[in-house]
Amino acid sequence: MSSVERQLDDLQAEIEAEVPGDITISDVTYEGPELVVYTRDPKEFASDGDLVRRLASKLRKRITVRPDPDVLSHPRDAEEQVRKIIPDEAGVTDLDFHADTGEIVIEAEKPGMVIGRHGSTLREITQAVGWTPEVVRTPPIESSTVSNVRNFLKQERDERRDVLERIGRQIHREEMADDEWVRVTTLGCCREVGRASFILSTPETRVLIDCGDKPGAEGEVPYLQVPEALGAGANTIDAVVLTHAHLDHSALIPLLFKYGYDGPVYCTEPTRDLMGLLQLDYLDVAAKEGRAPPYESEQVRETIKHTIPIEYGDVTDIAPDMKLTMHNAGHILGSAVCHFHIGDGLYNVAFSGDIHYDDTRLFNGAVNEFPRVETLVMESTYGGRNDYQTDQEDSERKLKEVINETYERDGKVVIPAFAVGRSQELMLVLEEAMRTGDIPEMPVHLDGMIWEATAIHTTYPEYLRDDLRDRIFHDDENPFLAEQFNHIDGGEEERQEVADGDPCIVLSTSGMVTGGPIMSWLRHFGSDPDNRMVFVGYQAQGTLGRRIQNGWDEIPMSGDRSRSSTLTLEMDVETVDGFSGHADRQGLENFVRTMNPRPEKVLCVHGDESSVQDFSSALYHEFNMRTFAPKNLETFRFE
Amino acid sequence: MSSVERQLDDLQAEIEAEVPGDITISDVTYEGPELVVYTRDPKEFASDGDLVRRLASKLRKRITVRPDPDVLSHPRDAEEQVRKIIPDEAGVTDLDFHADTGEIVIEAEKPGMVIGRHGSTLREITQAVGWTPEVVRTPPIESSTVSNVRNFLKQERDERRDVLERIGRQIHREEMADDEWVRVTTLGCCREVGRASFILSTPETRVLIDCGDKPGAEGEVPYLQVPEALGAGANTIDAVVLTHAHLDHSALIPLLFKYGYDGPVYCTEPTRDLMGLLQLDYLDVAAKEGRAPPYESEQVRETIKHTIPIEYGDVTDIAPDMKLTMHNAGHILGSAVCHFHIGDGLYNVAFSGDIHYDDTRLFNGAVNEFPRVETLVMESTYGGRNDYQTDQEDSERKLKEVINETYERDGKVVIPAFAVGRSQELMLVLEEAMRTGDIPEMPVHLDGMIWEATAIHTTYPEYLRDDLRDRIFHDDENPFLAEQFNHIDGGEEERQEVADGDPCIVLSTSGMVTGGPIMSWLRHFGSDPDNRMVFVGYQAQGTLGRRIQNGWDEIPMSGDRSRSSTLTLEMDVETVDGFSGHADRQGLENFVRTMNPRPEKVLCVHGDESSVQDFSSALYHEFNMRTFAPKNLETFRFE
Repeated sequence: MSSVERQLDDLQAEIEAEVPGDITISDVTYEGPELVVYTRDPKEFASDGDLVRRLASKLRKRITVRPDPDVLSHPRDAEEQVRKIIPDEAGVTDLDFHADTGEIVIEAEKPGMVIGRHGSTLREITQAVGWTPEVVRTPPIESSTVSNVRNFLKQERDERRDVLERIGRQIHREEMADDEWVRVTTLGCCREVGRASFILSTPETRVLIDCGDKPGAEGEVPYLQVPEALGAGANTIDAVVLTHAHLDHSALIPLLFKYGYDGPVYCTEPTRDLMGLLQLDYLDVAAKEGRAPPYESEQVRETIKHTIPIEYGDVTDIAPDMKLTMHNAGHILGSAVCHFHIGDGLYNVAFSGDIHYDDTRLFNGAVNEFPRVETLVMESTYGGRNDYQTDQEDSERKLKEVINETYERDGKVVIPAFAVGRSQELMLVLEEAMRTGDIPEMPVHLDGMIWEATAIHTTYPEYLRDDLRDRIFHDDENPFLAEQFNHIDGGEEERQEVADGDPCIVLSTSGMVTGGPIMSWLRHFGSDPDNRMVFVGYQAQGTLGRRIQNGWDEIPMSGDRSRSSTLTLEMDVETVDGFSGHADRQGLENFVRTMNPRPEKVLCVHGDESSVQDFSSALYHEFNMRTFAPKNLETFRFE
Repeated sequence: MSSVERQLDDLQAEIEAEVPGDITISDVTYEGPELVVYTRDPKEFASDGDLVRRLASKLRKRITVRPDPDVLSHPRDAEEQVRKIIPDEAGVTDLDFHADTGEIVIEAEKPGMVIGRHGSTLREITQAVGWTPEVVRTPPIESSTVSNVRNFLKQERDERRDVLERIGRQIHREEMADDEWVRVTTLGCCREVGRASFILSTPETRVLIDCGDKPGAEGEVPYLQVPEALGAGANTIDAVVLTHAHLDHSALIPLLFKYGYDGPVYCTEPTRDLMGLLQLDYLDVAAKEGRAPPYESEQVRETIKHTIPIEYGDVTDIAPDMKLTMHNAGHILGSAVCHFHIGDGLYNVAFSGDIHYDDTRLFNGAVNEFPRVETLVMESTYGGRNDYQTDQEDSERKLKEVINETYERDGKVVIPAFAVGRSQELMLVLEEAMRTGDIPEMPVHLDGMIWEATAIHTTYPEYLRDDLRDRIFHDDENPFLAEQFNHIDGGEEERQEVADGDPCIVLSTSGMVTGGPIMSWLRHFGSDPDNRMVFVGYQAQGTLGRRIQNGWDEIPMSGDRSRSSTLTLEMDVETVDGFSGHADRQGLENFVRTMNPRPEKVLCVHGDESSVQDFSSALYHEFNMRTFAPKNLETFRFE
């Protein structure tokens, strides 16, 4: 009998001792980090509302209870009863019965009404039909990404369960190492922005954190080939942890599966969906630009199949000697500060990922409270000595002035924007400004992936800022559903209509004017001096956005069938700072200053050479910590 | 055709173009780092004394010329001619013909007389018989180690050639990596003394430098199991480089062969022999103490079979992007500072190994001149702020005083000493003191491995201090052959005779009184207050030597058949400092101060935590270098 079998036998005995005598436990097994308990008496199990919580706390495991397939009522009968129990206002859009696990996946417009107070409705369902309900939100804005991911996972359900069982046994294997140490190896994003990637290792476990590309530097990928990364085979890695969906953190995760990795990818649920959206777009862009993509869409699907969603604050076993907890990072939807607790109190390392310290309209500020943390691996994008940003209130005032001026002269505003994060922040600004009368009501056209990214945001309101979430939940006044917002889904024809029409605002990708529908908007709006182009995000060296910002007004355009022409830019160009998803220098310092507990060591990464050096030196002098500005390919030992 | 085949074809063409038209080149092949040129005209080749040197310089390779086996004269005829050519005074003790390679191995008491001025006698031999002569020294003191190693290599000659050909192809493989970086990973001896081990790596190549045990800390071995060491398989290492033979640098090299390594081990020839001696003793001690040895004597033989000897100053290709040069380190016989030149001028790293900066009686001081060096990995054994040693002259005066006093009261002196290095240094002191009349002539008995280690020293006089070597070469006054020196080879009976006899001096292992014949001398001499025990080396915490030094005089002794008894120590105990094989703090600083060129970075290793911290900080403040005191398991990137 393997050590995992023994462990499961012991757990089954413990559970049997804890539950009332009339409840039969037929099996206990691991699926990923969760302990799945099969019972022949699901109704009795559900009658004690506190039983699962008590078991979880006693066994220190995440627990899922499922009915033994033998005792299930027929789906047809069950469906009838379930529909009776759930109030109509919940807006159930799909009911999906999985006889193999006894689960019903219920998709509803208002998941809270399916769950009930403290889960009372869910328990009522189980008591009535025996099946275990699982609830997901019907996206308020239809999202093809969300529905593709859900359909794919439904279709791959059997194989996914096999994957999760294998991962579960791996996580709960017997600890073999008798040595103790904790190390971080840098594989990318050191003294540079882009290709974020780290290895966190102990004698027992090796975890890869992030695996991104480097925008604007084709071919500069993380150093995956070195022995301490994948050199000894992609399957020598225990787990992949993803802080957030942006491509400079996520782009190359599917490549790991091409190399033979078949372990878990831990991230939040919205990160999983956004990651899928961005990775497929990454392949698309590569194909359009005639580059050979490093992997196929098949590997994106593999990535999604291997993803184990984590909720903020949940402590999850990811290896015999490692627990992962994700916390809100305030940067984009689902972004996380990842905290690793190693050994039995041996050491704690937090990876900030990308953070925004202050609250924004979309998100609460980054969490920096932990039970313990000795080392912090900290982003430093705006860590330079002069990297202070304009206050968001001033930025919003300036943006509204620009819009008003343009409106008064009958012009149109076009804003190049990143699909994920900044666009939604701007939508909230514009919606409020129109609602309060700060700017006139007019259409806001969303082009490129912005609409789809927004749909994903509305699917996961739990990940948005408290008051925004409450508005969506309780007041039914979802600002993203405001009628001004129009999805450009009619291609060039629709764009032409917009161009010919009344004053309006256009948000379009790409955010740095390097391709995508913004090129079309340049053509439509560019030659009219009454129009305005407004930059709200960072424009990298070498991008067309940066050139336009710097005053270029002769823009080479490749027309249809690759005829080239030149566009003379007549419209005004403005820049409004202060909408960054990154903490500025002040925010970064505040994150560390108010961090509780204060870490002993900080590795400053994810910033240009001068930014990480400035920031490392500042933290050392202000807080007397041991700080480092690592290079790529270095290894630090902490314990 | 592989890239190595193409390379060899090109080299053959280049050689054919360079040599006179009457010389036929029948084959060109690699054996380890050497290029072996087979010719049908060995006599003509040998007639131009400068031809090989010109070829080596043009092709930038180490070149060996061998006759095509077809054209060899019969060994019987050849032997007669060879014996005629070599002067009788050379003292030939063995002639060994290897028809497969056309080599004659000539063992002689005076190799210089077989070689002749600038190799003239060797050339004369080839011109006469076609065979290629290779000369080794007949040990002036018979050494079973040297003869065992030589016999073993003779016996394994065929297999060794296969090994060398494989290694040769590996060294000269086509360079595949298009990336450039240089890293050092610490696997041991950081913030500690013992288990020296490092990985030097580039995208193309990984080299293991040293692989020692940690005396007094059973089980604390280098971190070989991590991915960047042997985690991906022992054969992912390109080469092993050994700085010197002491067990804290060499003990675990045979373990690599147990793990499946079958690549080269680079070290000097005396290091190879001393390493074999010490490793076999290591196994012996483990067996005697009832511990399971980590490997068998079979793996020691494998290590010797895979050893490629390097001479001081020779630049040797050990990988497509790495050249190794060893320089005298002044620490023990054959000890080397190892200099690595990486890429085509990309970077240079020097590993000090253990060094002695000043000249000693045995050795010239450590070399610290290099064409280039950016990073120095530096031993810091005596790097602490107070680690200054007594001047050797004062130490010698004190030792002689102690001996004279003891002699006058008719007592005997016993000195626990390490077999390799310190014993030979003392022998030189004692021989001179008796010759000049500073102390009376009396027998000096050598017990344990000291005699054997001394025999190895006399086999390689080229590795001794200039004037000592010259005395041995030219004046035929080898001090190690002085008649006072007596090898204790008669066991307990002989020891009893010595104990019953007249005043004398005994040098015996182990150096820290942790076992070996010194235990017997304690019994024989210990109860007589006229005798003296003199400590001349470092006594580690926890050893019996340290306790006696600190005043213990009730010594628990395990007698024959493990009866235990207690010895009351009546003899005087003295300590004479200043004979260390390590540079003291001043010597370490001087090594760096006078180093040419001055390195940019220094990693301070091989010292207790406080020593490396003190030394690292001192170098930083005095020379404004970037200095580090690494922990084990860290990786530093330099380029």
